[in-house]
Amino acid sequence: MKRFVMKGNICYSNENRELCIVENGYTVCENGICVGVFEELPECYQTFPCYDYTDKLIIPGFADLHVHAPQYSFRGLGMDLELLDWLNTHTFVEEAKYQDLAYAEKAYDIFAEDMQKSATTRACVFGTIHNEATLLLMEKLENAGIKGFVGKVNMDRNSPDYLCEVSPEKAAEDTEKWIQEAEKFENIKPILTPRFIPTCSDELMEKLSALQKKYDLPMQSHLSENFGEIQWVQELCPDTAFYGEAYDKYGMFGNGCPTIMAHCVHSTEEEIQLMKKNQVFIAHCPESNTNLSSGVAPVRKYLELGMKIGLGSDVAAGSSLSMFKAMAMAIQCSKLRWRLADQELAPLKVEEVFYLATRGGGEFFGKVGAFEKGYEFDAVVLDDSNLRHPQELGVKERLERMIYLADDRNVIAKFVNGNGFLRDKDGIKRTFFGGNQ
Amino acid sequence: MKRFVMKGNICYSNENRELCIVENGYTVCENGICVGVFEELPECYQTFPCYDYTDKLIIPGFADLHVHAPQYSFRGLGMDLELLDWLNTHTFVEEAKYQDLAYAEKAYDIFAEDMQKSATTRACVFGTIHNEATLLLMEKLENAGIKGFVGKVNMDRNSPDYLCEVSPEKAAEDTEKWIQEAEKFENIKPILTPRFIPTCSDELMEKLSALQKKYDLPMQSHLSENFGEIQWVQELCPDTAFYGEAYDKYGMFGNGCPTIMAHCVHSTEEEIQLMKKNQVFIAHCPESNTNLSSGVAPVRKYLELGMKIGLGSDVAAGSSLSMFKAMAMAIQCSKLRWRLADQELAPLKVEEVFYLATRGGGEFFGKVGAFEKGYEFDAVVLDDSNLRHPQELGVKERLERMIYLADDRNVIAKFVNGNGFLRDKDGIKRTFFGGNQ
Repeated sequence: MKRFVMKGNICYSNENRELCIVENGYTVCENGICVGVFEELPECYQTFPCYDYTDKLIIPGFADLHVHAPQYSFRGLGMDLELLDWLNTHTFVEEAKYQDLAYAEKAYDIFAEDMQKSATTRACVFGTIHNEATLLLMEKLENAGIKGFVGKVNMDRNSPDYLCEVSPEKAAEDTEKWIQEAEKFENIKPILTPRFIPTCSDELMEKLSALQKKYDLPMQSHLSENFGEIQWVQELCPDTAFYGEAYDKYGMFGNGCPTIMAHCVHSTEEEIQLMKKNQVFIAHCPESNTNLSSGVAPVRKYLELGMKIGLGSDVAAGSSLSMFKAMAMAIQCSKLRWRLADQELAPLKVEEVFYLATRGGGEFFGKVGAFEKGYEFDAVVLDDSNLRHPQELGVKERLERMIYLADDRNVIAKFVNGNGFLRDKDGIKRTFFGGNQ
Repeated sequence: MKRFVMKGNICYSNENRELCIVENGYTVCENGICVGVFEELPECYQTFPCYDYTDKLIIPGFADLHVHAPQYSFRGLGMDLELLDWLNTHTFVEEAKYQDLAYAEKAYDIFAEDMQKSATTRACVFGTIHNEATLLLMEKLENAGIKGFVGKVNMDRNSPDYLCEVSPEKAAEDTEKWIQEAEKFENIKPILTPRFIPTCSDELMEKLSALQKKYDLPMQSHLSENFGEIQWVQELCPDTAFYGEAYDKYGMFGNGCPTIMAHCVHSTEEEIQLMKKNQVFIAHCPESNTNLSSGVAPVRKYLELGMKIGLGSDVAAGSSLSMFKAMAMAIQCSKLRWRLADQELAPLKVEEVFYLATRGGGEFFGKVGAFEKGYEFDAVVLDDSNLRHPQELGVKERLERMIYLADDRNVIAKFVNGNGFLRDKDGIKRTFFGGNQ
């Protein structure tokens, strides 16, 4: 029985995207589930063990809705190209290396360890086309205590010979085998991952759709990121009115198939309406959309329409796994969008990006991303004492500073569905433990 | 006699803004001045002590051309406003506190320590209107080993009562007293700092101009940052054709008076031509211009025109002292400017922002910012081993990654004009030493 109390400055978003703060309050975990937040600890919980983080910040873990694990090796490199050239020049070349399990082992060790050190508790992760490497990635993320989804990537056309599935049949066969082998993982689940329409033949999409129904799987892909990409999809799928329809015609665009579409920078009105109707999740990836000169998604519009939306780091078009950085850049990009292009949509605010990184993205994983009764207990403890200041600061101000200034040093403890990690005394390594000691 | 050799992967910009890399080469310092870079160490230097940083990156120190020391206390806070509201709501309130020397002591200790930990070796710093606090700031930066300029701020109109010089006469008298008292510092020199035209009366500008001539001082201020500000200046100075003229008519706009103008986001053609003619330095502050929704300066245009230009962190409209972040954001903002507003100006490249942060800004301080014969010896040693990767990376790639991913942990040694700091074994504190042991 994982049952414990945490004490500290508890910060989370309510469903209206407002910030809720309980200063030096209590939150309680029972069986991995949050019981609630309390200003005074109710008597019935006073016998539970208490992690006392008085004066520290306690926030829900972040959800990273879009990240490419094999690309972590070249984070911060080669970003002077737009999407399609970037894929051919840097990305496909690197992803091909994961055919070699020894290489994958080395690379995914680094990725999983850095994910563990981060403030992210949930993630939707792209692997490569390789079954073995993708299973290895799932294992490492499971061992790192992360919960979420990992996808073996599908691509069978318009891809270099060295990174292309040989036929739709073989692709579907490999994918089904991978799905079955992935059943052994408890916290990391498979997600169908057609790379994007340009690299997936009609036949492949049909077969993935069949697998989706057979195994009741979620799916993730890319949508309306870049003008060149959008035009290419239009040429490849002349029978569709907009990009999203090329997924929808295979039943892989929400509407019962839990779906994440990364980017949606240049979605048309029709596409937006279909996403809304089908409850497609949008992974907003501001750093990636900046680094590849794609543009800035109209996030305020998506929020106003009540669409499902969270944030993605999109490593390695994004340079960092940090969701703090994703939040800061979501604000910053929305300001430049407002200033340079469209004064109809006001810039995003701190409360809104915090909502996106926690509750907004968390919803893809169920009741995740808030300290409310019935939510899975994901928590991150932040120690901001290294960011010194001469004046008094309130809890809200300290949280706001974290968005711009925090890095992995500030993360001193992390709980995922009630299981915890604590920073060791040396400040670097972590120990994993169940929440019941 | 400070004479020593450094060995490592030496990276710097030449005058054509190209990256020069000598892998595991040598650079030599004599009396604080660089003798050159060598693939093999010439015999005449083989008796010099050698700092062996084999396999580490050695770069010139960064020049931060624009930073407000008193605002460091609220870095990362309160950035949901545009410039003029931000000044009134957050900035002036905080700066007024520096009347209290005990507060200034606490705040400037933090600022100077963090500057010391950073990769910045040269800076042009705004203080507040207060003489004593500004002298304290100069002392702390001098003790931190930084070289550069600090300005007591002048503002005598359109400012709140609690942060306003009482008359042009008193302002000039205080400023002259401060200039004289500041003579005692060796490495931190005074710079005239009229805040910006809206807060400086004609009489004050006249008096500052007289002081500029009497003491032969450089000057720093703000220019064409925000539309509201520009319009206000036009209203205040109806006799000027453009903002810069309001400085120029007092002889305080380059042309013999070494001048830094921060921002220049919305400079007109006439203003640009006058800056070019007068060799005014532009401090490009991409994060600040983003956070306050000001816009993005046309940096490529300034580079193509051969103008003087470097980077500024502009804390606290910028959230961080990190010039790595300033470089990354200079690239990123130039991409969004290209995508959203103006495809005439191509995005900035890694080589170009590295030039801006080192040699471009360094030029304001003399022969600073490169490992060339006769340049002052400013060097920063970067250990990037915490950013693990499974593949081989070349030195240029490692430098590129640093721009996106480095923080103060990666800075393991720093030399300013030949004087050095080394990271202690505990990885945090530093020791200061002359270069001659």
